[in-house]
Amino acid sequence: MDFSLTEEQELLLASIRELITTEFPEEYWRTHDETSTYPREFMKALAENGISMLGVPEEFGGIPADYVTQMLALMEVAKCGAPAFLLTNGQCIHSMLRFGSPEQLKKTAESTAATGDPAYSLALTEPGAGSDSNATATTFTRRNGKIYLNGQKTFITGAAEYPYMLVIARDPEQQDPKKAFSLFWVDAKKPGIKVNPLHKIGWHLVSTCEVYLDNVEVEESDMVGEEGKGFLNVMYNFEMERLINAARCTGFAECAFEDAARYANQRIAFGQPIGFNQMIQEKLALMAVKCKNMRNMVLQTAWQADRKESLRVTSSLAKLYCARTALEVIDDAIQIMGGLGYTNDARVSRLWRDVRCERIGGGTDEIMIYIAGRQILKAYRE
Amino acid sequence: MDFSLTEEQELLLASIRELITTEFPEEYWRTHDETSTYPREFMKALAENGISMLGVPEEFGGIPADYVTQMLALMEVAKCGAPAFLLTNGQCIHSMLRFGSPEQLKKTAESTAATGDPAYSLALTEPGAGSDSNATATTFTRRNGKIYLNGQKTFITGAAEYPYMLVIARDPEQQDPKKAFSLFWVDAKKPGIKVNPLHKIGWHLVSTCEVYLDNVEVEESDMVGEEGKGFLNVMYNFEMERLINAARCTGFAECAFEDAARYANQRIAFGQPIGFNQMIQEKLALMAVKCKNMRNMVLQTAWQADRKESLRVTSSLAKLYCARTALEVIDDAIQIMGGLGYTNDARVSRLWRDVRCERIGGGTDEIMIYIAGRQILKAYRE
Amino acid sequence: MDFSLTEEQELLLASIRELITTEFPEEYWRTHDETSTYPREFMKALAENGISMLGVPEEFGGIPADYVTQMLALMEVAKCGAPAFLLTNGQCIHSMLRFGSPEQLKKTAESTAATGDPAYSLALTEPGAGSDSNATATTFTRRNGKIYLNGQKTFITGAAEYPYMLVIARDPEQQDPKKAFSLFWVDAKKPGIKVNPLHKIGWHLVSTCEVYLDNVEVEESDMVGEEGKGFLNVMYNFEMERLINAARCTGFAECAFEDAARYANQRIAFGQPIGFNQMIQEKLALMAVKCKNMRNMVLQTAWQADRKESLRVTSSLAKLYCARTALEVIDDAIQIMGGLGYTNDARVSRLWRDVRCERIGGGTDEIMIYIAGRQILKAYRE
Amino acid sequence: MDFSLTEEQELLLASIRELITTEFPEEYWRTHDETSTYPREFMKALAENGISMLGVPEEFGGIPADYVTQMLALMEVAKCGAPAFLLTNGQCIHSMLRFGSPEQLKKTAESTAATGDPAYSLALTEPGAGSDSNATATTFTRRNGKIYLNGQKTFITGAAEYPYMLVIARDPEQQDPKKAFSLFWVDAKKPGIKVNPLHKIGWHLVSTCEVYLDNVEVEESDMVGEEGKGFLNVMYNFEMERLINAARCTGFAECAFEDAARYANQRIAFGQPIGFNQMIQEKLALMAVKCKNMRNMVLQTAWQADRKESLRVTSSLAKLYCARTALEVIDDAIQIMGGLGYTNDARVSRLWRDVRCERIGGGTDEIMIYIAGRQILKAYRE
Repeated sequence: MDFSLTEEQELLLASIRELITTEFPEEYWRTHDETSTYPREFMKALAENGISMLGVPEEFGGIPADYVTQMLALMEVAKCGAPAFLLTNGQCIHSMLRFGSPEQLKKTAESTAATGDPAYSLALTEPGAGSDSNATATTFTRRNGKIYLNGQKTFITGAAEYPYMLVIARDPEQQDPKKAFSLFWVDAKKPGIKVNPLHKIGWHLVSTCEVYLDNVEVEESDMVGEEGKGFLNVMYNFEMERLINAARCTGFAECAFEDAARYANQRIAFGQPIGFNQMIQEKLALMAVKCKNMRNMVLQTAWQADRKESLRVTSSLAKLYCARTALEVIDDAIQIMGGLGYTNDARVSRLWRDVRCERIGGGTDEIMIYIAGRQILKAYRE
Repeated sequence: MDFSLTEEQELLLASIRELITTEFPEEYWRTHDETSTYPREFMKALAENGISMLGVPEEFGGIPADYVTQMLALMEVAKCGAPAFLLTNGQCIHSMLRFGSPEQLKKTAESTAATGDPAYSLALTEPGAGSDSNATATTFTRRNGKIYLNGQKTFITGAAEYPYMLVIARDPEQQDPKKAFSLFWVDAKKPGIKVNPLHKIGWHLVSTCEVYLDNVEVEESDMVGEEGKGFLNVMYNFEMERLINAARCTGFAECAFEDAARYANQRIAFGQPIGFNQMIQEKLALMAVKCKNMRNMVLQTAWQADRKESLRVTSSLAKLYCARTALEVIDDAIQIMGGLGYTNDARVSRLWRDVRCERIGGGTDEIMIYIAGRQILKAYRE
Repeated sequence: MDFSLTEEQELLLASIRELITTEFPEEYWRTHDETSTYPREFMKALAENGISMLGVPEEFGGIPADYVTQMLALMEVAKCGAPAFLLTNGQCIHSMLRFGSPEQLKKTAESTAATGDPAYSLALTEPGAGSDSNATATTFTRRNGKIYLNGQKTFITGAAEYPYMLVIARDPEQQDPKKAFSLFWVDAKKPGIKVNPLHKIGWHLVSTCEVYLDNVEVEESDMVGEEGKGFLNVMYNFEMERLINAARCTGFAECAFEDAARYANQRIAFGQPIGFNQMIQEKLALMAVKCKNMRNMVLQTAWQADRKESLRVTSSLAKLYCARTALEVIDDAIQIMGGLGYTNDARVSRLWRDVRCERIGGGTDEIMIYIAGRQILKAYRE
Repeated sequence: MDFSLTEEQELLLASIRELITTEFPEEYWRTHDETSTYPREFMKALAENGISMLGVPEEFGGIPADYVTQMLALMEVAKCGAPAFLLTNGQCIHSMLRFGSPEQLKKTAESTAATGDPAYSLALTEPGAGSDSNATATTFTRRNGKIYLNGQKTFITGAAEYPYMLVIARDPEQQDPKKAFSLFWVDAKKPGIKVNPLHKIGWHLVSTCEVYLDNVEVEESDMVGEEGKGFLNVMYNFEMERLINAARCTGFAECAFEDAARYANQRIAFGQPIGFNQMIQEKLALMAVKCKNMRNMVLQTAWQADRKESLRVTSSLAKLYCARTALEVIDDAIQIMGGLGYTNDARVSRLWRDVRCERIGGGTDEIMIYIAGRQILKAYRE
């Protein structure tokens, strides 16, 4: 049992903090948030500083790092108030390494190397098919040696910014749902594609889009992975994505906690810092507990990932706890900061709007409970 | 003990619902929210339909109504998804009736009659003085038969839209805080006034402003109420404002609850409406309980107001409970609606952002606890 | 909308308070609790003072009263710290009026008149059949003109104290569950009956028993109600029993709240009453809110009962909220009272143990959610 | 970052589990609980198996072990459903090593060696002095070369079972509270001592007593530690005791969680295990999260103790979180187990009663918040 960080880890975290606090102050984030603009400069800076490609093989511009280190880095980015997309780009490369063609892998790596951004958005969800993926209605049909995609996707993160899409579609002639779905590599600029960014509570720095696919023509070589193995392939990464969600939430919560603790020292009311009031101390104490719990849960799960243990239960529980709890912590931070906390002059207001999304995206709280609940039961079946 | 509404009350609520659903559909609110625009047409329609002036004396264009009826109307407006500023305009008139000069009362009534809007914003709060009103630093000083106001206000609701302001300021020569603060009637267009709307999480339909007062010149006749009685006069209305907050929260929560319940019937996942899932039913049952509690609490307090009982404890508890609980209910509605609930395509997302404010404005949760807590103790002192 | 009590109601509540505080002080309850003894004197006193038979027809020794009044009385008893079995005896009479034979009704009324106790315990639940009543395995079989009961019941309240039992049993030859179950009037002293009181967390003043039925012989005339209508008949009263549960919980919570508020004034720490601490005031304010909500919910449901409206949803929600919330309030009372609150020297410790039962008996929280949740959904189906 | 246990730790935990499950089955605990009897056989067995003296120097019969290992052992005992007094005896020895005389140390070690029990109870708290220790009113006065103790103590754990007491008393002539309090070694059988065990919700296996001291005569050599340093000396150990509380709560919660998970698999309702219901799965998932959080928090704090870091904040937060959360988890276990969970036939009912105490003893939740809250503020003061 050892809770200490290595010296390398400490240095990495210090460099992240240094980079963000000096080059990407709050004005940067506030402006991008208010104008719904993607933070290209930041993504590039992360890539250039070797931060965003932790865990990616060196041949693709990455830096080897275990999951514990990756999560530490991710939490630190979020703790600095930066919207931590980090690691998603790595996930794109990992996925193509696992099931993409050499050409697809090459495109992914080159695109990410050039921008620091994920190469593609993941176009899975549909208006009628969220967690219930078998209800996916977008089709692919072969005609004259080409493949045509038709359908509608929604809640597609980054569809307006990333150069490619990974589209899942159903073979309308295949009845067996385990064989019906395949993935396609689609250039986001192709004719027949219409992208409509949704207006939403938060996460204004990256688009969440409706994507309309109207006879979008792709080649046989654009199929990604084996035919019929579409969901199987992408599901592989869901557990890691849940852990990433949990880590991001943890960093956001810690960011809000620290802002609130500082504010409670500075803000004077009735002749003394408001932190002298028991009700403020109570909030801070409970927020501190929650931040500790979140961090421990994230690191323990990352440690299991490094040991190649299954994350099915633990990543679900981590996402469930961290997404809910981060919202609670940030909500308390707003309450401590009062009127200020409700305005864009305090970043906690942005974190609050952003983090609400985490209880839905990547699988709702309820789906996390469903996944973990059944496994827990099973573990105690005699 | 009788929980039934009168026939008149039922008719009033039906007419409110009719007005809003036919003339002010969700697009109206969404557009105004996204563009941060004041809903002048709506305010006018409420006035023209006799809804917004319930409880105001007939001579000022009002319609007599007890507090129970006023709160029923307010809850119904909010339940229709409309941001219920309702009754604040009446409060302006009530205040001037109580402590304004005949001329000030006339201006208030005429302005409200013309627009349906409150005549003035209440410029009390300052960067260094929220609940701690004695820390108010804006001064008034007499020079050559005129009065000059200097200082900074913040979180002033409607300062960018309403024609007048009621500014509280300190006589720098008066040491006794109980005699130091006076109110002034100020035309919002006067030289020396700068109004800076804050960017904030929600409540985009009315501004919340910083107001800078730089040697703003007013007349002796612009003093409102007796000199030195500034806080005494405005505090008088705080209890009613808390009840109004509580009623608005209740309506918002009910609106979200109903949207979520309908959605749970319509949304199909895994071959059946999501409402068939226990975790959704659990949310709905608890949301229903909370909506009932809120409504009972609001109506019981209004009933006490009609009996001229003190509302000090009950309005504090009602605001405390309703503001917190409405946020919980609306949050659950978002969760039930999933990705959709996080976007502007569902009004629950706006309600969620708006209602967060209610736990801060009009006195924070913590101030409500402070007010009620001491009185409860006192009631059990033997 | 009227929240006031009638003068008669006020007088009734005063007489209840007077009776209990003068004749049944805390020592009485503590002793009966510590020795697990049924409070026969108290039950008799309630009967003699006309309190326990509110709502029962005068011809059976009752006093006419609407449900609002009955619930007010019940809450007052509980608020005085007395374990409010009240009204259950009336329920016995009501049931026999509805579906018992004249002789059964006579036995019920005479027994209750003599003791103030319920005439019979309700022997429904079995080790393998709680909410899932169709799993009931106890059988009745006819042989030589007699009927023989065989099986095991559990969690039977009062089986060790009440003179009779109402036993539900299955006809093993009837396949249709809607026709299989019948009720039997059984003298609790009959040969073949073994009663085993369970040891439990609280509710020590009345037994909760396992009941073993080994060839218990009854007559055809001991069948209660029509053959095959067993569950139908008893279910009829479940909604009212849930309301009774909710009312009892409300009174217990108010009792604990008041004890805690008084204690917070008296207990000195660090030179001042502990009530001066914000964390204590916070608890008291939230406890006050909860007590108000519970009481409103109970009275509103009782008012609906008086109007003959369906209580299916409202009584479920009332029980759900009141049972959970009473536990929270009493738990807070213990916390305010500290070490003392954990001992039998403070009655809150007993209330805490007792009230935990209410979230299970009469249908668990989960069953309440199930009942209400489906109806809520249905109400919003378009 | 390493969350793994050593092989030695794994073996130790297995041996604990083996010992308890084979020699101290649930009947043992239930009987002792129902009869309020101290589990002497168990304490002895722990001592004989080298479990209870982990961390105690070998010369006193102990076995060297770091705090992580001690807490692992403690959690395992509690997880087996045994009331984990463990380690308190070691604390007695540690204290005497630090500030007792050689003779007092000898008595302590010999007594513990003989029984496995703590040598003395800690007689600090008084009816008017809990957390506010300066209000301690028990006096010591010198007369004719002897010292006489007079006063009343309360909530003294083990006063009826342990052979000695460590009594804190005030020098009535010393005005400075920092010099006024001294500790005395008192044989619990001395004339003038009356011990009155309190009746309480749980913790029936060890007494919690009022102790009356009426002119109890002790020698100068019975003073423990330096005169006037009484509180200073005992406070030293409070942080470790809070960690012990937290560990015990964690084990209890895990015990209840596992019982509930097994039950959810076995209990059939409506034709399937109740664990198939979402509301049960939801409870189990959240219980699992909480158990993980508690365990991580305890181990992280123990790890800090091994590094000789200050535990002031972390042990307070650990106790705060674990005591509250264990109650929640065990409460959920009762709910899952339904009627059975409310009876002594299920050990969760005992755990529920026992664990409620942990939010009060060793410093209330509120004191934990007070201690941690101020330190957190301080850490963010710039």
